[in-house]
Amino acid sequence: MLGLRQPEIYGHTRLAEIQAMVEREAADLGITVDFRQSNHEGVLIDWIHEARTNADAIVINPGGLTHTSVALMDALAAAEKPVIELHLSNVHRREPFRHHSYVSLVATGVICGLGPHGYLLALRAATELVAPSPAAARDH
Amino acid sequence: MLGLRQPEIYGHTRLAEIQAMVEREAADLGITVDFRQSNHEGVLIDWIHEARTNADAIVINPGGLTHTSVALMDALAAAEKPVIELHLSNVHRREPFRHHSYVSLVATGVICGLGPHGYLLALRAATELVAPSPAAARDH
Amino acid sequence: MLGLRQPEIYGHTRLAEIQAMVEREAADLGITVDFRQSNHEGVLIDWIHEARTNADAIVINPGGLTHTSVALMDALAAAEKPVIELHLSNVHRREPFRHHSYVSLVATGVICGLGPHGYLLALRAATELVAPSPAAARDH
Amino acid sequence: MLGLRQPEIYGHTRLAEIQAMVEREAADLGITVDFRQSNHEGVLIDWIHEARTNADAIVINPGGLTHTSVALMDALAAAEKPVIELHLSNVHRREPFRHHSYVSLVATGVICGLGPHGYLLALRAATELVAPSPAAARDH
Amino acid sequence: MLGLRQPEIYGHTRLAEIQAMVEREAADLGITVDFRQSNHEGVLIDWIHEARTNADAIVINPGGLTHTSVALMDALAAAEKPVIELHLSNVHRREPFRHHSYVSLVATGVICGLGPHGYLLALRAATELVAPSPAAARDH
Amino acid sequence: MLGLRQPEIYGHTRLAEIQAMVEREAADLGITVDFRQSNHEGVLIDWIHEARTNADAIVINPGGLTHTSVALMDALAAAEKPVIELHLSNVHRREPFRHHSYVSLVATGVICGLGPHGYLLALRAATELVAPSPAAARDH
Amino acid sequence: MLGLRQPEIYGHTRLAEIQAMVEREAADLGITVDFRQSNHEGVLIDWIHEARTNADAIVINPGGLTHTSVALMDALAAAEKPVIELHLSNVHRREPFRHHSYVSLVATGVICGLGPHGYLLALRAATELVAPSPAAARDH
Amino acid sequence: MLGLRQPEIYGHTRLAEIQAMVEREAADLGITVDFRQSNHEGVLIDWIHEARTNADAIVINPGGLTHTSVALMDALAAAEKPVIELHLSNVHRREPFRHHSYVSLVATGVICGLGPHGYLLALRAATELVAPSPAAARDH
Amino acid sequence: MLGLRQPEIYGHTRLAEIQAMVEREAADLGITVDFRQSNHEGVLIDWIHEARTNADAIVINPGGLTHTSVALMDALAAAEKPVIELHLSNVHRREPFRHHSYVSLVATGVICGLGPHGYLLALRAATELVAPSPAAARDH
Amino acid sequence: MLGLRQPEIYGHTRLAEIQAMVEREAADLGITVDFRQSNHEGVLIDWIHEARTNADAIVINPGGLTHTSVALMDALAAAEKPVIELHLSNVHRREPFRHHSYVSLVATGVICGLGPHGYLLALRAATELVAPSPAAARDH
Amino acid sequence: MLGLRQPEIYGHTRLAEIQAMVEREAADLGITVDFRQSNHEGVLIDWIHEARTNADAIVINPGGLTHTSVALMDALAAAEKPVIELHLSNVHRREPFRHHSYVSLVATGVICGLGPHGYLLALRAATELVAPSPAAARDH
Amino acid sequence: MLGLRQPEIYGHTRLAEIQAMVEREAADLGITVDFRQSNHEGVLIDWIHEARTNADAIVINPGGLTHTSVALMDALAAAEKPVIELHLSNVHRREPFRHHSYVSLVATGVICGLGPHGYLLALRAATELVAPSPAAARDH
Repeated sequence: MLGLRQPEIYGHTRLAEIQAMVEREAADLGITVDFRQSNHEGVLIDWIHEARTNADAIVINPGGLTHTSVALMDALAAAEKPVIELHLSNVHRREPFRHHSYVSLVATGVICGLGPHGYLLALRAATELVAPSPAAARDH
Repeated sequence: MLGLRQPEIYGHTRLAEIQAMVEREAADLGITVDFRQSNHEGVLIDWIHEARTNADAIVINPGGLTHTSVALMDALAAAEKPVIELHLSNVHRREPFRHHSYVSLVATGVICGLGPHGYLLALRAATELVAPSPAAARDH
Repeated sequence: MLGLRQPEIYGHTRLAEIQAMVEREAADLGITVDFRQSNHEGVLIDWIHEARTNADAIVINPGGLTHTSVALMDALAAAEKPVIELHLSNVHRREPFRHHSYVSLVATGVICGLGPHGYLLALRAATELVAPSPAAARDH
Repeated sequence: MLGLRQPEIYGHTRLAEIQAMVEREAADLGITVDFRQSNHEGVLIDWIHEARTNADAIVINPGGLTHTSVALMDALAAAEKPVIELHLSNVHRREPFRHHSYVSLVATGVICGLGPHGYLLALRAATELVAPSPAAARDH
Repeated sequence: MLGLRQPEIYGHTRLAEIQAMVEREAADLGITVDFRQSNHEGVLIDWIHEARTNADAIVINPGGLTHTSVALMDALAAAEKPVIELHLSNVHRREPFRHHSYVSLVATGVICGLGPHGYLLALRAATELVAPSPAAARDH
Repeated sequence: MLGLRQPEIYGHTRLAEIQAMVEREAADLGITVDFRQSNHEGVLIDWIHEARTNADAIVINPGGLTHTSVALMDALAAAEKPVIELHLSNVHRREPFRHHSYVSLVATGVICGLGPHGYLLALRAATELVAPSPAAARDH
Repeated sequence: MLGLRQPEIYGHTRLAEIQAMVEREAADLGITVDFRQSNHEGVLIDWIHEARTNADAIVINPGGLTHTSVALMDALAAAEKPVIELHLSNVHRREPFRHHSYVSLVATGVICGLGPHGYLLALRAATELVAPSPAAARDH
Repeated sequence: MLGLRQPEIYGHTRLAEIQAMVEREAADLGITVDFRQSNHEGVLIDWIHEARTNADAIVINPGGLTHTSVALMDALAAAEKPVIELHLSNVHRREPFRHHSYVSLVATGVICGLGPHGYLLALRAATELVAPSPAAARDH
Repeated sequence: MLGLRQPEIYGHTRLAEIQAMVEREAADLGITVDFRQSNHEGVLIDWIHEARTNADAIVINPGGLTHTSVALMDALAAAEKPVIELHLSNVHRREPFRHHSYVSLVATGVICGLGPHGYLLALRAATELVAPSPAAARDH
Repeated sequence: MLGLRQPEIYGHTRLAEIQAMVEREAADLGITVDFRQSNHEGVLIDWIHEARTNADAIVINPGGLTHTSVALMDALAAAEKPVIELHLSNVHRREPFRHHSYVSLVATGVICGLGPHGYLLALRAATELVAPSPAAARDH
Repeated sequence: MLGLRQPEIYGHTRLAEIQAMVEREAADLGITVDFRQSNHEGVLIDWIHEARTNADAIVINPGGLTHTSVALMDALAAAEKPVIELHLSNVHRREPFRHHSYVSLVATGVICGLGPHGYLLALRAATELVAPSPAAARDH
Repeated sequence: MLGLRQPEIYGHTRLAEIQAMVEREAADLGITVDFRQSNHEGVLIDWIHEARTNADAIVINPGGLTHTSVALMDALAAAEKPVIELHLSNVHRREPFRHHSYVSLVATGVICGLGPHGYLLALRAATELVAPSPAAARDH
């Protein structure tokens, strides 16, 4: 499952194109993705509650809620799933209030600054966390 | 090239095993990696200066220097290459002084909390930044 | 009326069981309770506006919004009713960002750290505020 | 268009009366206004997204969200329209947490403390920004 | 046992009347209360040490020491009993230096802003913590 | 009366042109304006003292003194007139030390970010405050 | 009455000599002084409670408690008498933690840095506050 | 000499009346006073420079400059005279920005909160500092 | 002399056992120790005043007062003896409010984190400060 | 082993003399010491890594790195040995930036302010931590 | 041109002697200097406005205004000339409030701590900025 | 001697060209310069220790270490020589973390923002500090 929220898209890539990229990559990795978008904090929290029973991992781009929503953080913690937090831009190079993330306090891992390609890396990370590859399992 | 510094390894994966994983992945991606480790801030800075002419991108795990070294940050900015900052653990869930990174202020992207597997994602991210895949190039 | 929001339930007590406890206690105290739950800040604010005309007091467990919602605080202040703020856990022993509550700035009283039993105490407190018992009235 | 959110109305002016005043003034100025109100952050953000294609400027009274909503700020920035931020009261004379506004970081201009009359000034400001009067254009 | 300290009484209720209310409620609940008052930090600490062997729970109104006494906090922590912290007024609506409580860092629960009636709620909370009622035990 | 101080003029509009705009608008509104400029804090304070007896309202662009002059603030408070604080630029988007205004603590209203046109809005606001229009008076 | 606490005496003036100076000045002013000293916060608070019924004003040198004792502040506020806070040294030129005084938040006036002579000025100030001289009453 | 600046007079006492009170008291004490008032920081600094050769002590009510003028502080320090800082009101009970005084960092003593009568105490303090009375000299 | 205060004992060592250890070590070092314990700040200050004439050095474990008592700090400074501050635990690894010590601002040296054995080191340190050993004297 | 770094030596004791004192004390205690000094952070970290296999405890005087080196802290934590942090001077009485120590966050104990004699106490502390004396073991 | 303000002169060099030194150096460098001094912020701002048309560069010793005058900073920025900020003493070794300079935010360069000789270096720096020497031009 | 560290060179001037400029200027001034560069903090500290016996003054461009190295500051203080701190750029106009300099706390003087020409001014300043010119000596 992929609960996503995306107000910060700029440049030439549309949300639809990102969705297409993500679904091609998911097909390559042999996994199923549920790609969603909402501007409503409450809707996102409801989806995360669903993911508790319907998904193996959550990839989330929390947009502006990253920095202000304790409620979103609490919902992710309660989901008890691996969570990958994703940002298209490197938030650490933007305004100071974007340097603190409530989501990071409960996420398993964070990827930022790598543009739409970051979604593909996040998919790989989630896949690895759910079903570690033999080499990594051995190393780890 | 991969300038790395690694005092925070815990768990069962040794530095040598990470190096082996990284080199296998580099071979799969058809790229060349120069894997290095040092505890000396000055040595890391010298390597970054070398990378200015010898490398296409820099992946760096700056360990404890992440949070205190303005000199390291200045060197990375002067290198004028894509920089991927990498941390094995999710630094945002550790002590407060680990939440600020000078390196993030000049990095292209940041990946943290995904363990040794994060190195493989960082390699992919660096490869994509240097030579974008056709799909991403089109989307982007 | 009891506007409640409850993402932080842990342990063995479910929301339904709390509702049952609350309704038994309300019956004992001879009062009527309207028990509601929502994850949406806007919905909560709408309910508080309703309470302005439909209720004598408000008991609210504002969950993660406690610490971030100036809008919720403004709505409670505009309701001009006794407000009891309730938290299952002792928020002062949790992360620092939970130590500040916008709701407390407009609440009549606050109860925290006493688990589900706190709801019963909050009901009694609301009842006393609306219709003081003769002894307390005399003492006060 | 006029996306507005108004929990802080006090005194003798109702929301309906403000709407009437605004519409009379719009008629005088020869412009069209779409006057809306919601307690839901997500609904406001959806309306701002609509405004991107349907409106020439945005006048917004963000109420309690002024101080806490990065998501609202991001939506306004993405709309790429002139934005007038409006407060009925002089927020700088109220509690300290009302002195910081995320909306001001992306607004074109801010008007506060002038009561319902501020709406009429905001309409004039928006009109001037979209179609500068000859004198101002010459001066500017 | 009830170690209490009360410099902030205002309004019409005297300390003696509160003591009477508390003792009536204790009789109703079938418990024994030892009601004490002192202005000396050292005396309060000695009583808390006594409570370690002589009491099942502590209800304390720490008055002005709430905000400054690390020694009182250490004594309460060392007592290893349920502790209910009580304030007559809502301390969160008073001066900023009253918003921080050392006692809250070790208390089980906190009740504030409910006037003398808060003592009766605190007695009930302490009784429930020492001997949970069947319903709550089942729910919890 | 209009006590103004203007070191931050940029763009193509000169002080003289603003004065002309303001005087045309005043003529349209049927009011009298006394337009003044000084770099001396003491002179501005003397003018404000004069305004106490000679003017019905004060519009002031306090320039760099906005952020540092408690004496200017005290003088404005002592004048006991409506005060409109005006800034050509949106000070909230400039350096952090420009985000705090002593003048705002005593002003009736604040207008910023609307360029020279802001002066015309300030004139209208002052006129309304001194002699409310019938509609606004009815609404208010 | 004169509740005083004096750990910071240095130089050549003893406490007994200050007491003698104070009593001579009190005789000259035709008033009665009760000069006391204690190192115990609780004792000082008890004395302040006595002063509520036995004294017209309080002059206090709170020594090190100045900066930490909320309980002392609460007692002085509850006494409802004019309070003159006195320090032998200019506390604003000493360590930063001496720059904040809880006592100043409830005192009528503060005198510091004038050595033992400050006690005589404090006596005069207290006398004036209790029984204003005709000239000052007329001026005031 | 008495360099004074007085924007904060409220209540029924005029500046002229304070001057009369001060001059009567000076006559009683057998000293000469030069009473001045200005709203200009530069003028005050010039007067302080004069005082270096023409006066034995300086009593100053720095008004709003208290909190902001490093230049005034530097001038007072360079005068090398006893300095008494005076405020009519208790600045510690007013807004937080009034709690810090640059003047206090170089003053000999500070008197505040005692109204116009504080001027008379300040005159006495200055007299004592310049020519200690025999008793105080012996005690000190 | 050894003025001590000890609310933070945990583990298997009782206060009586520490006293026995300390007295055995004192006998070995050929010095006399006066071992005391109190929960009252005033009593501790009285003992420190006694130590001014009766002791050569002070070893103190100030417990919770470490962080809050300016009065204790003043008493230690007034004693004009070598002072060794002692904590059983490493206070720098505990809560932030334990990281600041008023006692350290006047102590000669500080020992923390070494458990009951720290008392023996403190005795040796005090002995060395009072009567330096020949080697250290020569080195120093 | 004793990894040490010593830029703050003042007074009459040279580094060589401290080394001699330390080695005499080590001989008396029947232990072996490896005394080293370097100005290079990287060299110190390498030595700490060696100590992981070659030493039973580490005594370190981290000099100026105390306050700035997260990398040194990480290395000490990774060594998993008792660590005694040592400072010749009482750092709490020096500049504020010396009051925070990264090393204290991972050290077992800290000794400061006792001059060269502190080294001998640190040796005893390390010896006791590695092989507790029977008495302390019994007490502990 | 040389706008200067000099309240901090100490030691044996008078303002007149500095002026003589500066004029000799200007003669040697073949440039013209206009040396001025004022204690009035408004006068300095007027001179800076003059410099906009009459001078090639500004050397300024802003004394106590350095740290407080946003208006001075705005004037210097508006002058659009090279600005050399000069302090006789090393302001970074003085009180903390002298460490921040508004002037530095718009100055080209800053020289401090070098006494009267700093004026000669500032003249050379200004000369070089206006007319770079051939060598520096080539190097630069 | 000139210990220098230079990661921030940008523009067209190379390190070798600066060295040539410096050496030409040294020849003109009749002094000897030892020009060095290193990226290693430990090496710089070793060189500063050498300078204690081999040099009359130190000119240092501490680059990124300026803001983070307490060890470098301690070494410079221990050298007991005049120290000129030099920065090519005006550090006060760059990121906030560049506004604090540990080196400035022990330097004699600071020069910044004047590009490579600053090195020549620093040489002159050092020469003047070691051997004051007759005029400056007379003035000073």
